[in-house]
Amino acid sequence: MISVCLLGAGNVAYHLFNALNKSKKISVNQWYNRSIKKIESFKNLVEITDTLSDLKEADVYIICVSDDAVAGLSNKLPFKNRLVVHTSGSIGIHNLSKELRRGVFYPVQTFTKDHDIDFSTVPICIETLEKKDFKMLANLANSLGCDYHRISTEQRQTLHLCAVFVNNFTNHIYRIAHEISDSKSINFELLKPLIVETARKVSYLSPYQAQTGPAIRGDKKTIKKHLKNLEKELHIEIYELLTKSIKSTHGR
Amino acid sequence: MISVCLLGAGNVAYHLFNALNKSKKISVNQWYNRSIKKIESFKNLVEITDTLSDLKEADVYIICVSDDAVAGLSNKLPFKNRLVVHTSGSIGIHNLSKELRRGVFYPVQTFTKDHDIDFSTVPICIETLEKKDFKMLANLANSLGCDYHRISTEQRQTLHLCAVFVNNFTNHIYRIAHEISDSKSINFELLKPLIVETARKVSYLSPYQAQTGPAIRGDKKTIKKHLKNLEKELHIEIYELLTKSIKSTHGR
Repeated sequence: MISVCLLGAGNVAYHLFNALNKSKKISVNQWYNRSIKKIESFKNLVEITDTLSDLKEADVYIICVSDDAVAGLSNKLPFKNRLVVHTSGSIGIHNLSKELRRGVFYPVQTFTKDHDIDFSTVPICIETLEKKDFKMLANLANSLGCDYHRISTEQRQTLHLCAVFVNNFTNHIYRIAHEISDSKSINFELLKPLIVETARKVSYLSPYQAQTGPAIRGDKKTIKKHLKNLEKELHIEIYELLTKSIKSTHGR
Repeated sequence: MISVCLLGAGNVAYHLFNALNKSKKISVNQWYNRSIKKIESFKNLVEITDTLSDLKEADVYIICVSDDAVAGLSNKLPFKNRLVVHTSGSIGIHNLSKELRRGVFYPVQTFTKDHDIDFSTVPICIETLEKKDFKMLANLANSLGCDYHRISTEQRQTLHLCAVFVNNFTNHIYRIAHEISDSKSINFELLKPLIVETARKVSYLSPYQAQTGPAIRGDKKTIKKHLKNLEKELHIEIYELLTKSIKSTHGR
């Protein structure tokens, strides 16, 4: 049985708590948050606290707060030499206080409040300074049913950059399509099956192989027509730049 | 029972044939293709031909050839006044010969050879010049288990433009993430659950609501770090432009 103490109450913390709490190999000893209100509804499932000095012993302390708050919280922990991890994709392992055994436990996924996700499908990226701590975190990932991967700080930060592309930028592309379809009274629902299939497609084809459309075909007529139909300057710029980039990638 | 004759042998034709052939309310009378070789493997399931003058009577003739070839093929059909539709998102209904009863039957989806898709999830956009033809095509869509939508040529062309964004451009964004992850020896597999969840997310949140990341947070430090980590000039331009567009959309 791995004992865990959770710190913070954002989306990652909520989803992680549910996953940790479900596992028979993990016991969540305590859940800390600066404001107790945010975790009060869980008080029948776990001991909750807003007082750092009340923290009990646990195998792993998991910090799920915003990037800027990680260092400060880790410095305030009232113990030394225990295994404390953060869950951020972008900050270094050394942001944690050096009085602690430090680690990173980064779930590569986007979490939304009020929407369940099967946590066992989430890949966990692990980084530690000591071997035995890696083992403990690998065990923890396994107990959640997750695949885990050992990656360096630099790799994790690159992965986070990739996540900005496939998550934030992709979502913004959806938004642009939503704006364009709305402007012509077309129901955005019509595009949803295509959005899901485009994502599923790269599970059996590389994005390189999966590329289709006027840019890769060199279909100048269609490209010209599309550019004429776009009304916003930024949409035109994005269409032109991505078309140029597709052509450059595929040597046209 | 609706009788159908299929013309052409691209990805749309293959998937459409399988769906038509499965439906108990539809009978595929014939499948025509210029080169018989491409449809030879179906000869036990349907009558195949490479000779237009052999075409039999049917309720609907469905043309599934490349955009450039639609007009030419429709002009060569050896009959008048029968219902003939094309399946293209981008060309007009008037590309079909005016000797025919013309229509469009546009499935909003991306089709890949050798990969099955549940056709009943595909929305069908219908356009006709005559009311009774609309009814027939609505019936056909229903018999495939599909939702159908009446849209104009202009709306269909806008929808096709949106499809370029959510399918072609999104896929290219995946490609960029693949390049970046490869360059640091990170397994692209790690990003696949995030890719799928990002797509699923817009089924219950609008893309506007679903937006997250450094651009919408105004997190200059992370943006600066990401730009420093990008090596290709085009990737930097794309990161900068999409970041600017997210900020503009969300009033930052």
